[in-house]
Amino acid sequence: MSKDGPATPYLRVDVARARTNIERTARWAVAAGVALRPHAKTHKCPQLARLQIDAGAVGLTVATIGEAEAFVEHGAEDVFVAYPLWLTDESVRRLRDLADRADLAIGVDSAESAARAARLLEGSGVAALVEVDCGQHRTGVAPDDAGALAAVAVEAGLPVRGIFTFPGHSYAPDALVTAADDEARALRAATESLRAAGLEPDVVSGGSTPSLAHTHTEDLTELRPGVYVFGDAQQWELGTTAADQLALTCRATVVSHAGGRLVLDAGSKALGADRAAYATGWGRLPDHPEARVLQLSEHHAVVDLAGAPLPALGTQIDVVPNHVCAAVNLADTLWADTGDGLEAWPVAARGRNS
Amino acid sequence: MSKDGPATPYLRVDVARARTNIERTARWAVAAGVALRPHAKTHKCPQLARLQIDAGAVGLTVATIGEAEAFVEHGAEDVFVAYPLWLTDESVRRLRDLADRADLAIGVDSAESAARAARLLEGSGVAALVEVDCGQHRTGVAPDDAGALAAVAVEAGLPVRGIFTFPGHSYAPDALVTAADDEARALRAATESLRAAGLEPDVVSGGSTPSLAHTHTEDLTELRPGVYVFGDAQQWELGTTAADQLALTCRATVVSHAGGRLVLDAGSKALGADRAAYATGWGRLPDHPEARVLQLSEHHAVVDLAGAPLPALGTQIDVVPNHVCAAVNLADTLWADTGDGLEAWPVAARGRNS
Repeated sequence: MSKDGPATPYLRVDVARARTNIERTARWAVAAGVALRPHAKTHKCPQLARLQIDAGAVGLTVATIGEAEAFVEHGAEDVFVAYPLWLTDESVRRLRDLADRADLAIGVDSAESAARAARLLEGSGVAALVEVDCGQHRTGVAPDDAGALAAVAVEAGLPVRGIFTFPGHSYAPDALVTAADDEARALRAATESLRAAGLEPDVVSGGSTPSLAHTHTEDLTELRPGVYVFGDAQQWELGTTAADQLALTCRATVVSHAGGRLVLDAGSKALGADRAAYATGWGRLPDHPEARVLQLSEHHAVVDLAGAPLPALGTQIDVVPNHVCAAVNLADTLWADTGDGLEAWPVAARGRNS
Repeated sequence: MSKDGPATPYLRVDVARARTNIERTARWAVAAGVALRPHAKTHKCPQLARLQIDAGAVGLTVATIGEAEAFVEHGAEDVFVAYPLWLTDESVRRLRDLADRADLAIGVDSAESAARAARLLEGSGVAALVEVDCGQHRTGVAPDDAGALAAVAVEAGLPVRGIFTFPGHSYAPDALVTAADDEARALRAATESLRAAGLEPDVVSGGSTPSLAHTHTEDLTELRPGVYVFGDAQQWELGTTAADQLALTCRATVVSHAGGRLVLDAGSKALGADRAAYATGWGRLPDHPEARVLQLSEHHAVVDLAGAPLPALGTQIDVVPNHVCAAVNLADTLWADTGDGLEAWPVAARGRNS
């Protein structure tokens, strides 16, 4: 880094805000009587995982074995791979290595994958949670089928810890409450289904950042939000993160005034190309709430400043990515503003897709 | 890599197809009497740059100083940073280092940035090209203003090599021809504008993969396509790349049949989240041309197979990303199928956004 700071575009973390977001959610979970197991795919960063654990998280959630390896290498002791892994010889070897060093669980959503996991992971100590579909219609069994799948797994020798779901259909302005309702209904039905099969779930896990505040916490034992640590333009536009809670921005430079436009050097290779149906553009500018990112290419953002005067060429401006998990996964380093300057925090699990 | 091959999801290059794409376009350029300076942001990979140079490319195009560094480090001798850089002390130091090792040019699109470059890069040998807006309305001056800007730059002491444009508005089904027409019209007007200022451009540079076949090559000296080396789902859907020319795929595994759906382990963290207005989904399956990717999350693709039977759990399936430049920038390695097995080719310029 030169005296001008890191070259733009770069990702900058407001550590005080991230800490506040982490601690506020941790306090809320304690008050609600649920465990927090934050999804570390959002930050992929050991320092942020440490803040979450120090604030009381019972462990971490990850999406891939590679993410689990990155966090266990940095001291994580309890990791849940919330994904219906299809095991290979190589992934079994990696899971067994991990299970020697940490408490480890994986997702299953079919009898075939459960039987395979039982056979290939025998004696490893790796546990499973049955994935339930609560309305996103991605992976997971129907709630009423959870008990039968859990029974198959247990019968095959796979330790089943409980059930989990992801109310990902919460990502829409009118769905925050209804997705939380769907989540609770599905987890209640799945719990009943396990009990009917003679099994009692120790873990009943759900949670997404948009639906978090509306969670029926009496029906769950554990929540796995990810984005809450930073917020992003999606959460801002959904109304679930306030502007002064946004803890990660992409610092960009004004490189052009061509045609009277404001053009920044932060493009889709820094911000990600995510744009949900409800998004008003490709990211937002916290210092210019009325501005909209009209066009995004790989290294350009074209911004409509809503009538504000154009900042001079060379001015640095912050952009909040639409989807912070995607932006973080493009960077090798998060520049953490600790109040005493910038520290380089590694995105240790960047690109660990398998 | 285990005996099963790399863990999915991973990017796989069909080297024979990439070579054919590179050589076909090189022959076409020779026949048309234009130089090729491929945009290396697409592959970010020294081995593919080498194939392009060996096929007759006059040099490489890149978008950032970091990309230039990655390719010069691997032997590139002539690099154009096709971007209106705003120079800092640090970027000037890096450009001067590069100019000691390679022929180097950068873009300018304002009198202020041209004067700044003239001052900060004095004596370095770094040349400039004036960027012209031919209809994308991103960066670049109006064609008629190119001469005045070139004159300012030359007057300030910055060597001006010529003009360049990017007809990026070619990315629409009805715009392939009209964007090429716009490009030619803009470059003719800009050339006249330079001549009126007493300057003769040595380089008149344009090109985009969608518009390439429609280029008015008599009006240009150089073309800078990037995606043509691989093609992608966007090019396939625009009709500019045939299915049997697609040279990069993401190899994925069937992980779930939940609800009768086909779910693959290739999500937006492997494929990118790009989805143009004309796209029919989030990527395409070359072996299932009728299939559509209905839903894409970070580690899941939910696919409608258009009535075909579901492949078994664990089956490996290829997905073509919508935008190959974005997918490559997510991976550290391209697995190159040379016909004799897979070689690991580094994505040496991955994440080099500045």
